Amino acid sequence: MRLSPANNRMMRQSHEMEFFFGGTELNVAASLATMDCEVTHVSAVSDDFVGESALSAIRSYGIDATHIAKNKHPLGLYFLEVGSSVRASRIAYNRLNGSFANINPDMIDWEKILQGAEYFHWTGITPGISENAYLALKKGLQTANEKGIEITVDPAYRSNLWKYGKEGFEVLKELISYSTILIGGVNEINEIIGTEFASDKESFIAASKEFQKQMPSVKKIFDKVRIGTSASSQTTQGRGWIQGTYFESESIEILQVVDRIGTGDAFAAGLIYGLLNFDDEKALKFGNAACAIKHTVSGDINLCSASDILDVLNGDKGGRIKR
Amino acid sequence: MRLSPANNRMMRQSHEMEFFFGGTELNVAASLATMDCEVTHVSAVSDDFVGESALSAIRSYGIDATHIAKNKHPLGLYFLEVGSSVRASRIAYNRLNGSFANINPDMIDWEKILQGAEYFHWTGITPGISENAYLALKKGLQTANEKGIEITVDPAYRSNLWKYGKEGFEVLKELISYSTILIGGVNEINEIIGTEFASDKESFIAASKEFQKQMPSVKKIFDKVRIGTSASSQTTQGRGWIQGTYFESESIEILQVVDRIGTGDAFAAGLIYGLLNFDDEKALKFGNAACAIKHTVSGDINLCSASDILDVLNGDKGGRIKR
Amino acid sequence: MRLSPANNRMMRQSHEMEFFFGGTELNVAASLATMDCEVTHVSAVSDDFVGESALSAIRSYGIDATHIAKNKHPLGLYFLEVGSSVRASRIAYNRLNGSFANINPDMIDWEKILQGAEYFHWTGITPGISENAYLALKKGLQTANEKGIEITVDPAYRSNLWKYGKEGFEVLKELISYSTILIGGVNEINEIIGTEFASDKESFIAASKEFQKQMPSVKKIFDKVRIGTSASSQTTQGRGWIQGTYFESESIEILQVVDRIGTGDAFAAGLIYGLLNFDDEKALKFGNAACAIKHTVSGDINLCSASDILDVLNGDKGGRIKR
Amino acid sequence: MRLSPANNRMMRQSHEMEFFFGGTELNVAASLATMDCEVTHVSAVSDDFVGESALSAIRSYGIDATHIAKNKHPLGLYFLEVGSSVRASRIAYNRLNGSFANINPDMIDWEKILQGAEYFHWTGITPGISENAYLALKKGLQTANEKGIEITVDPAYRSNLWKYGKEGFEVLKELISYSTILIGGVNEINEIIGTEFASDKESFIAASKEFQKQMPSVKKIFDKVRIGTSASSQTTQGRGWIQGTYFESESIEILQVVDRIGTGDAFAAGLIYGLLNFDDEKALKFGNAACAIKHTVSGDINLCSASDILDVLNGDKGGRIKR
Amino acid sequence: MRLSPANNRMMRQSHEMEFFFGGTELNVAASLATMDCEVTHVSAVSDDFVGESALSAIRSYGIDATHIAKNKHPLGLYFLEVGSSVRASRIAYNRLNGSFANINPDMIDWEKILQGAEYFHWTGITPGISENAYLALKKGLQTANEKGIEITVDPAYRSNLWKYGKEGFEVLKELISYSTILIGGVNEINEIIGTEFASDKESFIAASKEFQKQMPSVKKIFDKVRIGTSASSQTTQGRGWIQGTYFESESIEILQVVDRIGTGDAFAAGLIYGLLNFDDEKALKFGNAACAIKHTVSGDINLCSASDILDVLNGDKGGRIKR
Amino acid sequence: MRLSPANNRMMRQSHEMEFFFGGTELNVAASLATMDCEVTHVSAVSDDFVGESALSAIRSYGIDATHIAKNKHPLGLYFLEVGSSVRASRIAYNRLNGSFANINPDMIDWEKILQGAEYFHWTGITPGISENAYLALKKGLQTANEKGIEITVDPAYRSNLWKYGKEGFEVLKELISYSTILIGGVNEINEIIGTEFASDKESFIAASKEFQKQMPSVKKIFDKVRIGTSASSQTTQGRGWIQGTYFESESIEILQVVDRIGTGDAFAAGLIYGLLNFDDEKALKFGNAACAIKHTVSGDINLCSASDILDVLNGDKGGRIKR
Repeated sequence: MRLSPANNRMMRQSHEMEFFFGGTELNVAASLATMDCEVTHVSAVSDDFVGESALSAIRSYGIDATHIAKNKHPLGLYFLEVGSSVRASRIAYNRLNGSFANINPDMIDWEKILQGAEYFHWTGITPGISENAYLALKKGLQTANEKGIEITVDPAYRSNLWKYGKEGFEVLKELISYSTILIGGVNEINEIIGTEFASDKESFIAASKEFQKQMPSVKKIFDKVRIGTSASSQTTQGRGWIQGTYFESESIEILQVVDRIGTGDAFAAGLIYGLLNFDDEKALKFGNAACAIKHTVSGDINLCSASDILDVLNGDKGGRIKR
Repeated sequence: MRLSPANNRMMRQSHEMEFFFGGTELNVAASLATMDCEVTHVSAVSDDFVGESALSAIRSYGIDATHIAKNKHPLGLYFLEVGSSVRASRIAYNRLNGSFANINPDMIDWEKILQGAEYFHWTGITPGISENAYLALKKGLQTANEKGIEITVDPAYRSNLWKYGKEGFEVLKELISYSTILIGGVNEINEIIGTEFASDKESFIAASKEFQKQMPSVKKIFDKVRIGTSASSQTTQGRGWIQGTYFESESIEILQVVDRIGTGDAFAAGLIYGLLNFDDEKALKFGNAACAIKHTVSGDINLCSASDILDVLNGDKGGRIKR
Repeated sequence: MRLSPANNRMMRQSHEMEFFFGGTELNVAASLATMDCEVTHVSAVSDDFVGESALSAIRSYGIDATHIAKNKHPLGLYFLEVGSSVRASRIAYNRLNGSFANINPDMIDWEKILQGAEYFHWTGITPGISENAYLALKKGLQTANEKGIEITVDPAYRSNLWKYGKEGFEVLKELISYSTILIGGVNEINEIIGTEFASDKESFIAASKEFQKQMPSVKKIFDKVRIGTSASSQTTQGRGWIQGTYFESESIEILQVVDRIGTGDAFAAGLIYGLLNFDDEKALKFGNAACAIKHTVSGDINLCSASDILDVLNGDKGGRIKR
Repeated sequence: MRLSPANNRMMRQSHEMEFFFGGTELNVAASLATMDCEVTHVSAVSDDFVGESALSAIRSYGIDATHIAKNKHPLGLYFLEVGSSVRASRIAYNRLNGSFANINPDMIDWEKILQGAEYFHWTGITPGISENAYLALKKGLQTANEKGIEITVDPAYRSNLWKYGKEGFEVLKELISYSTILIGGVNEINEIIGTEFASDKESFIAASKEFQKQMPSVKKIFDKVRIGTSASSQTTQGRGWIQGTYFESESIEILQVVDRIGTGDAFAAGLIYGLLNFDDEKALKFGNAACAIKHTVSGDINLCSASDILDVLNGDKGGRIKR
Repeated sequence: MRLSPANNRMMRQSHEMEFFFGGTELNVAASLATMDCEVTHVSAVSDDFVGESALSAIRSYGIDATHIAKNKHPLGLYFLEVGSSVRASRIAYNRLNGSFANINPDMIDWEKILQGAEYFHWTGITPGISENAYLALKKGLQTANEKGIEITVDPAYRSNLWKYGKEGFEVLKELISYSTILIGGVNEINEIIGTEFASDKESFIAASKEFQKQMPSVKKIFDKVRIGTSASSQTTQGRGWIQGTYFESESIEILQVVDRIGTGDAFAAGLIYGLLNFDDEKALKFGNAACAIKHTVSGDINLCSASDILDVLNGDKGGRIKR
Repeated sequence: MRLSPANNRMMRQSHEMEFFFGGTELNVAASLATMDCEVTHVSAVSDDFVGESALSAIRSYGIDATHIAKNKHPLGLYFLEVGSSVRASRIAYNRLNGSFANINPDMIDWEKILQGAEYFHWTGITPGISENAYLALKKGLQTANEKGIEITVDPAYRSNLWKYGKEGFEVLKELISYSTILIGGVNEINEIIGTEFASDKESFIAASKEFQKQMPSVKKIFDKVRIGTSASSQTTQGRGWIQGTYFESESIEILQVVDRIGTGDAFAAGLIYGLLNFDDEKALKFGNAACAIKHTVSGDINLCSASDILDVLNGDKGGRIKR
């Protein structure tokens, strides 16, 4: 759950906050559901009216919410103060003791959930939150692996997590060993395997090569490069590397960023949708277009349809009104 | 009536909507009234509190609203989801069975209404909505024509209208034959007389020539060219063609578009104001400046005074505060 | 869809409106889903972002929305100006040409929808809106009847409907002949079978007797009696009549009415829930408590859980905070 | 202009305020215009966008605003903190140096304004604000008197006015000597002629007698008696005294007061409307019903139609929805 | 920090929440500061923009905030869904792992803080939250006790606290042994010393007697009795018992409750203010009036001045506007 | 106090306004307090709930508000209509008869206030408002001067002030003769000493030289140069001149201006903070960075911390989220 003062105000100037339900994996799930994919979200919410509201929102996207548990811990949340131009946005978290951190790994029937699934998506936030979350995820990954499901991972390494006694990069390495597609680039690779590659295109290729050597289960690597010129102006580009072949999408510039949170998740969702519907290169382009259009949508979640994203992919960026 | 989710949200993320009363002819009327012209608006609203609210808004601009009828049909409306940057705005209409579509042509006393009028403005939306609206307009045009009133027309051809059994381009041709000033350019000319001119300056000149040949009542042609680089950034320029003479205004760039709806109507109103007060070329420039400043005003209607528009026309675009 | 000016303002004083998605049958469906019943809603929405928002809201309640069609007509809506104390609320409708009025009866697979259903609920609004809606409903009733499903009807006779050439009371009589439970009282009975009973308890009993004689398929009659002392203060009581036996619930007073719309639907939903879970008399009491608590909930829909309603039924009305 | 924190908040808890344009005479004018009377309002507003907004609002009621002057002084305003139950509302004024206080008496063409007028309404606020306002009003009263127009006066004596060197009661006596109808009761009479009558019915009769003796131009006296049990609950009743005859209206109770400001002006407007359309006794009842229904309307102005008020007068206070 | 959906909505119907900073002890502190007492608040907030906002709010009341620590834990908060009439309000807490629960007892310089203090106020919430909070409070009580400061206690026993391994009633007994004034009645006494007194007046007297026998440091007992007829209507009355003498205040009825949270704290603050300024009986009456008027103020905190409260105490409850 | 229609609306389109408490000197004070400086603000507010709200806001910044007087005049205020792109913002003032204009110079104990102060900041707005304000300021300047306190002045010459019979430039000259640091550039110098320097860098140097010759008490001159390309896009740069040495900061571009009001005050506060903590050149850079970041903050006051400003100074302008 995200809470932010309305109208770009700073929190101390405000008496009201907007809220949205989101979270990196939910963002991916909701975006895929909006594009008419069948999606199941596995999580835990608080057993009170806050959790009920979260379920209501999750159901509204058309996601199967029947595998979301309820427990007596408060719903995790964060406060976001939206920046603008030269002022950065700020986030204050309150999630390490929440309902998701206290998810019960034994309550999740992965066999049933993964019946017929084609893709399993996870991020590095989940194992960073708590040991319970780590164990729940690991069991899911093992089951998915056995079933031969494609497993996409967005490592999303965050140093302000990992408070329960495990080293982030070690856990990530263990869990990535079940995964088949990396959604990440030089930064993530450096953090996980301890390399020090630069951020240019050549380094991305070298890093991908090295990563695949060390993590041989990963067959494909896709990354979005964000060039932020200010809190309200961004450029995005996608890069891909598959078994030695490099390709990239065009750059897309977004002049008036409405909401930057969740743009990485929009990329992940767009990419997965693309992999399900197009070839690898078009999937990357679709992911990049999804990432770009998300910058114009309030909240954590990309609510644009596949057809809206294709319009951007096809260069229809001039603001014509759709009547 | 226009309804749109507040704060650039998508509709499904919202529980609240802003509303404005507008509509292409009303927008022109209200802008002219705001510039202290005497204006009468002829229309029909619903005989309920929604229609009463519309009348209240119309009166607030200083428009003579005494010739607006009331009937038992709901007020026509549309929903607008405001886009941003690479995400286009979207419109969903609900007007084909509304109070205006059911206007009673026999209830309008055009003789009285047009007493002393200098200009009569109409758009192609009106005859596209219903046969009743078409008949009401036609009667008005005939009366105005007899009285020698200048008649301005914005063809505004929309393919999602014209559902009542007549071909749009034929009706428009018939009604334009009463008119003296065309507010439109290559697109409109192509749609009406079935030509295929390109959008460059030379084509505009050629198209104007051809149009005047086919529609000899039209003595002057004025157009605004919009170059949209994104839903939130636009450039506008005015073009004019009068009896063989071409002229144009400077381009004006608007970096942060607040509201794009009604910018064409702001051009029309500015142009008419200009024709009443300046020479043709300055009228075009004034129309273009009006169009530009409308991009910064919420709602369908340009609420800027003539003096504000002159400031833009004179190059005062630096954002100095007027104390 | 309902649109109403925020903060009890009159529409002409307002620039913003709240909106909710509702409608008599949807209200019953959503309330039942909120009480954890499995519910399928059959309807049609517009094929645009407004309809998509409606679907999103419907899914959020946990309703099965897969049998809701989309078509090219605008979503039906109404405007509500909320009254207070001695000022009555006002409604202006815009629904007779909407997506639901244009529902295609042939597109509904009633066999599949009604598989395993226990209850089928309909109201007199549906056949009053259009012939298509009437035909769609009739087919559903016939199928449900064949399957031996309990059919509840809220006649909700409204004189401002029935514009398509059929007499309301005749259609209602025809459709009620498939139904087994009447949710309505003296007013409804008088309107349908043309009697003139008074509103007291004895008349209710006599009317019920007469109604059952004429409409023998109806085995049970349940009614709520509302005593409105002002737009912001109400008292509700339930009455039941089953095969000659009369019973009633206690009265519940609501001093500060938040929202009166949908209280009848809350009664219907509570009653159906009660019939599924309790005996007839407790079902009536539960329906009355549901009706009472709905007066405190914004929007058309009763979002209170069965447990909240049971608290009211058990007399817990003192406003203790639930921590 | 009135500014008040939204949602019943205290000002120090708030970052946003609602605003309404009002003022005792404008309230009467707007209410009469809403009831379809022809009304001209004479005043002065600031020559800036604030004054322009006020004019826009005034025109929206259908009032003739062409006799409202503009000057270089800021628009007068007040802050209102809305109370509730045992907490009283609070007002802070900022009007003694505003545009109306600086109205130029010589700019008002009373001859033209009063052409064909039937009623002239004034209150004691106007001459209390400044000498200019006093002089402007006096000239108007003299002109109206000469023309034989009925002159209604609401003395509205306020001790926090009268800062420009004149005694309130003396000025009021002078101006009332031109007036024919007093809208006021025991309190006002005591303040003006220095008596000490109590507030019961008999005292009202005695006071009216004495007042008429001293102010013989006044032929009719109408008063509303407010019994406030709390900031959110009120009872109103009308009393009348005409040439020795006493009559009264029924009492009306308003349980949930939405806005108490302007209820006296609603009474005055209702009374004048009544005097124009009914006999004296029904006029009083109509005024009282208008006063009652105003308690349910936000802002200073009674926006209810004559037909809404007649519903209350006829006892329709049960909150039935008007569909 | 309290977060609640605006406009009485349920959380799942809302996209926006109002927030207030409060908490039982802060509520008392802020109310006393509003009445111009010198107050120091001892607490801990999060070291981020949320905590900074809390400090900003606390300073705005005129409270000395220099003894409020910052730490790396999120600010405790709760969600409030405001009920109405027969629907109860609901609260969901998130505070057991927050910044206050992690307060460092060794960082508080009680000697310095209590220099010159006359009253020390604490509630049973504090020791129920965490062992750290308990230890910090205990140290403060010991210091205050040594200095001979009056110590008021509101036991506020809540069964959903006390999760850290201590029994609530034992800790409360220990800490009350330092205190001199009990703010509480039969319920609190029963919970603390394990008795089973009823709630009538005689039982209150008997309970007070017994309590004082067991807890001899307590010299005075003050209680407010709340009679809730619904979530939006309440009656309050104060009771006192001092060394064998019983006294009580009048009852005050509040018909339209705006906000019930913090009314007990308003009573405590009013009582302390009263004890500082009046005799015991008037102090009780002042506390009761403060409690009553708080029901009309949004948020947790009573922002009314001492003079506003005296108006209620003196019977001025009729809603007269204070101009 | 500043009042502005929400959401960039024009005032006549709006029913709600946001408000902020600000004013040039308060803005500087609040920004310094936000950067953890000890600040005392000397002013006067109205003795009503509006003034109380202002005090509450002032205290919330951590400013010592104990030397702010209360009087019976309304709080000064202004209306702001926020422009965008080519539409300029507009301001309408209402402050010449307010509480600050009526400040009582004899009530200010400058000796006590200035005890231990390092800097005294004033602007030309104060002496322009009223003779009382001028006298109060003059006494303060004399006291500060005697104590050897650094005195910074922002001349802020406004032609719409100075209505009480004194010439602005003469008063400013008199008061600047007590001051040691000028915050202003060519425009201000030209207005005060009647020169006609151009705005380029060389002219700034020449003007500074001339100014110092005429006003020898001023030892340092700092200016920010604003280049506005539109109401929503600005570039700022700082210039300094100290005893013959010129230096300048880099330019900072702000693409999406949130709020332009108070950016000069943010520069002044940043500069003073810089002078207290860094050398002159870094102070200028810090002031410029403070000015730049203020363009992204709603309201008159720069609420960014010193550390946020240092981030901008160090080039961290890419909109990275601070987690």
